Amino acid sequence: MSQTAVQEPKKERGPLNGVDTPNLFATINVVKNNPELAKFKFRAKNTWVSGTHGRGTIETFYGAGSEHTHKRTFTMEADHPAVLVGDDKAPLPVEIVLYGLAACITGGIANIAAARGVTLTEVQATVEGDIDLRGILGLSNEVRNGYENIRADFTIKGDAPAEKLREIVEQSKARSAVFDIITNKVPVEIGVNVG
Amino acid sequence: MSQTAVQEPKKERGPLNGVDTPNLFATINVVKNNPELAKFKFRAKNTWVSGTHGRGTIETFYGAGSEHTHKRTFTMEADHPAVLVGDDKAPLPVEIVLYGLAACITGGIANIAAARGVTLTEVQATVEGDIDLRGILGLSNEVRNGYENIRADFTIKGDAPAEKLREIVEQSKARSAVFDIITNKVPVEIGVNVG
Repeated sequence: MSQTAVQEPKKERGPLNGVDTPNLFATINVVKNNPELAKFKFRAKNTWVSGTHGRGTIETFYGAGSEHTHKRTFTMEADHPAVLVGDDKAPLPVEIVLYGLAACITGGIANIAAARGVTLTEVQATVEGDIDLRGILGLSNEVRNGYENIRADFTIKGDAPAEKLREIVEQSKARSAVFDIITNKVPVEIGVNVG
Repeated sequence: MSQTAVQEPKKERGPLNGVDTPNLFATINVVKNNPELAKFKFRAKNTWVSGTHGRGTIETFYGAGSEHTHKRTFTMEADHPAVLVGDDKAPLPVEIVLYGLAACITGGIANIAAARGVTLTEVQATVEGDIDLRGILGLSNEVRNGYENIRADFTIKGDAPAEKLREIVEQSKARSAVFDIITNKVPVEIGVNVG
């Protein structure tokens, strides 16, 4: 290489991994200059159907200073399996939460890889949680209701050295909303309207 | 009433609200006598598609001493909306977690109402969470990544006095796995396989 080569202008990242990277950086800059835009409210609804089976929707949210409606109304369902006295029409709520964790870190991996100029070819997540149902069945006050622990395993492939791929997963975990929600405490206020 | 009437035998609860109440009580009794059966492992998988869009499955779980397969393989998807630089093909992971909370407490309400002999006619849940995205965007180290707080509002109608209906919601919250997962800490271990 020539010693006299002038320094190349800072390379702009183009879209990568299906991530609109320029838009991602632009969004971060806009929020940096106006922190109010970072305040979001997300929502979900559920309607009891029968037994442990429910059906709900995810439709609107508030953020970036205004109300938004998703491109379409997303529907979700939950139930218990037969061994837990349900009809097994849909996943358990505790399985749904595991999926949320897997999806949150996976989405972050794609964004962070794009921001770092790494092309991904595969990301797979398998999440497993251990739970002792004596808690929710009311058989023990020492056993907690929720998971005792959760393991999330990621397989990641792309055009970067192993260490760089590991760092992308690490950074995604460090900035994952669902990882924080599960590993730390979130206050939840319950309201009841009696018909 | 006759003073000489013999005491009626303890009333057995029949199925109610679509809940197989006798089976529910039988299950609790079986677990009571063999706590090993209460140990469950739930699982979820996710495969990255493109950008923040992923698609996954919920298929098997371990519990009551053996492996189980759901009646069918449940599929789930997640994405980010356009304002968060995604294609809005599916709900956000943080919305999915709110749905899990709504569904967990709703399922519990149906079970507990059945156990207490209360016929329900309606249960609706609306959950909303506040999040400041400066956390996940890496713009602040003081702002957490996850929800700052969550509100879950339940409308419950049935053939019981208001106070009894309120107590059912309260008991469901007290024994909700997802409520515990969100309001308390769960350790999460992340593994990375680099391809």
